[in-house]
Amino acid sequence: MITASIITIGDELLIGQVIDTNSAFIAQSLNSIGIPVTRRVAVGDNWDEIWKALEYESSINRLILITGGLGPTADDITKPLLCKYFNGKMVMNEDALQNVIHLFEKRFNRPVTERNRKQAEVPDTCKVLLNTNGTAPGMWFEKNNSIFISLPGVPFEMQSLIREKVTPMLVQKFSLPTIIHKTLITFGVGESMLADLIQDFETSLPNHIKLAYLPNHGIVRLRLSCIDNENCNAEAEINNKFTELQELVAEYLIATDDEPLEKIVASLLKNNQQTLSTAESCTGGYIAHLLSSNAGASSFYNGSIISYSNKCKEDMLFVNQNTLVTHGAVSKATVIEMTKGVLQQLHTDYAIAVSGIMGPDGGSTDKPVGTVWIAVGNKKNIQTNLFHLRFDRSKNIQLTAMYALNMLRQFIIEQSIP
Amino acid sequence: MITASIITIGDELLIGQVIDTNSAFIAQSLNSIGIPVTRRVAVGDNWDEIWKALEYESSINRLILITGGLGPTADDITKPLLCKYFNGKMVMNEDALQNVIHLFEKRFNRPVTERNRKQAEVPDTCKVLLNTNGTAPGMWFEKNNSIFISLPGVPFEMQSLIREKVTPMLVQKFSLPTIIHKTLITFGVGESMLADLIQDFETSLPNHIKLAYLPNHGIVRLRLSCIDNENCNAEAEINNKFTELQELVAEYLIATDDEPLEKIVASLLKNNQQTLSTAESCTGGYIAHLLSSNAGASSFYNGSIISYSNKCKEDMLFVNQNTLVTHGAVSKATVIEMTKGVLQQLHTDYAIAVSGIMGPDGGSTDKPVGTVWIAVGNKKNIQTNLFHLRFDRSKNIQLTAMYALNMLRQFIIEQSIP
Repeated sequence: MITASIITIGDELLIGQVIDTNSAFIAQSLNSIGIPVTRRVAVGDNWDEIWKALEYESSINRLILITGGLGPTADDITKPLLCKYFNGKMVMNEDALQNVIHLFEKRFNRPVTERNRKQAEVPDTCKVLLNTNGTAPGMWFEKNNSIFISLPGVPFEMQSLIREKVTPMLVQKFSLPTIIHKTLITFGVGESMLADLIQDFETSLPNHIKLAYLPNHGIVRLRLSCIDNENCNAEAEINNKFTELQELVAEYLIATDDEPLEKIVASLLKNNQQTLSTAESCTGGYIAHLLSSNAGASSFYNGSIISYSNKCKEDMLFVNQNTLVTHGAVSKATVIEMTKGVLQQLHTDYAIAVSGIMGPDGGSTDKPVGTVWIAVGNKKNIQTNLFHLRFDRSKNIQLTAMYALNMLRQFIIEQSIP
Repeated sequence: MITASIITIGDELLIGQVIDTNSAFIAQSLNSIGIPVTRRVAVGDNWDEIWKALEYESSINRLILITGGLGPTADDITKPLLCKYFNGKMVMNEDALQNVIHLFEKRFNRPVTERNRKQAEVPDTCKVLLNTNGTAPGMWFEKNNSIFISLPGVPFEMQSLIREKVTPMLVQKFSLPTIIHKTLITFGVGESMLADLIQDFETSLPNHIKLAYLPNHGIVRLRLSCIDNENCNAEAEINNKFTELQELVAEYLIATDDEPLEKIVASLLKNNQQTLSTAESCTGGYIAHLLSSNAGASSFYNGSIISYSNKCKEDMLFVNQNTLVTHGAVSKATVIEMTKGVLQQLHTDYAIAVSGIMGPDGGSTDKPVGTVWIAVGNKKNIQTNLFHLRFDRSKNIQLTAMYALNMLRQFIIEQSIP
């Protein structure tokens, strides 16, 4: 079996100035074609560190994916290093040069400088993977039966190259096994309670099927994995185990695909041809952002009123001034009126309303930081819930969004039962 | 000098199911106390891989930070492995046990199970770092002059331990140098143009000052770094170079702190005691989310109308039906009316309005995917701009938000000039 290491290059990764999202994308893509990733390494823009990483990772794995350090500036040393590592000399690649000229003339509307032209130079020991989205070409090297693929660190450029060049070429070159992952999603149950619930199931799993717990924001995903390299009946076997698992966690099960909660809600609404609006105070547009981040949102999502101020709650959502004075902005009465207001204003079948104190300031003895009221409803019926969150602002916002979306999911399902 | 490796543990990191945000946080924290991170490694929940990683990283660096694999479930093997690696035996830690009992009784309102109690067991060869936010304690080991610190993988728990235990203990134990980073932010200029602009400056930098280019979403951050371990006058020297750099890129300079654009805009508004509202179509609440993600947003941010549908644009933002029919929802005329509408509805000093086609669907010959109109303004004056973005939906949304916030930043500054 072919296994892989991912090496990401850049000082910014080691001082924590950027979060490495490239590795996750590459790992996902390689897994999907049957190449497990066993190690991911990040090193700085440092000649010795990069060199050592290439040597060490290629002593462990046959495929080495490298991103970063291919920019036009002096801190980017990956290309000259690879040239030396693979005993090559730099040559101008005509296709890459035409691509650079095309990008500058047609897309950026700027003259091509010498520095830009140099981006089209590559070691003569590599196969070029043309990058039509940027100036740094991908490069494919082979040495001692190992394959090294170097890609630009700009996520958009790297992703296109992985999709259009790297994975098709790897699939063509090797006879790869199938890796099967089946993931289900639970909500409202802790990792340890879940583990107790499925203890016997877990013990009964054969060695080649692995179970993983992935907790995040009130959700625990359970994943079964199996590599089908024995040509045995892995798919049927994992499907049986997956069905068994679903039955065991039925009470908490919210999905049997590895989908974000906002997509699950979107599917429910689209299938019912129903619409949704949101009235957000404390989440400040985060629920709206989640709902609209997937294509096709306009078919069910009319919009949102982000009522950060009390005046906005009164003017735009028709919350009674008296309600705000008597019960406060963070109250059951307020989120009910917000729900009614946004249903009326945006003419939708369903609505979500949230109001809470996300921190770090704004708490009181009565209503400490983390107090959140959520309402979901339609014209006939509104349900509310009070939550006490205990995290930082960012996590409190994310959790509130998850709780709200799950309340709506349950509400829609209940409404659909005749 | 003490240097560090970070080891993150978990199969989910190697199949790309989660993005590793922990490493960035840890790297930032260690850098801030003068410990550079030279390598970050991710390995799966696999005994041999973890063992090898501990051996290899400790052969390179003196400090090894480890996160993940400490959960209560069978796939988490980090603790028994560390017990063996450091020749210990498992013992119940009384403080950790009291913490587990407290968490379950007071916070989770659930009975403590045997599995939960086991979370308080630790190798007797470690010093316990009590984790009051979760059941898995942090652990501090020493071996052959190296320090190994194991922390839970849950970001919130790991972060508290780093802040409250790990960094104070490291600062106390070692005499650490100062690492100085100075970052400025440019907007609207490519990495290669910038490199040409500051080429002479870059060549003139002394060896111990490093320059890095960090491009992201239309922004390029330029960072100067220097380790002050020679007790020389590093701070004055880097400050001089930083001033020189600011002058060279003055035309594109938007900030001299490493702050997100939404914080820069927030500071401008707070300093002027002015308010902002947004009318978002294609960004679907993402600008609102950015503006409200930092504490204190309510002092300048009144709210937003997310008008995903045309009807919502008419009803809530008073966009003329005729405008929508004649010019379309993605047009200069529409964003101007959206700006006027939201200024009127939310009574703010400034407003942003955006309307565009984020893809992958919805484009036409006249208005292809990536066409975006942005307006910023106040009651007296509205400025508009047309953009043609060429990326995927997610990046188009992020870029639109950045362009809009920067247009507003410039507009506010222009208005302040008497």
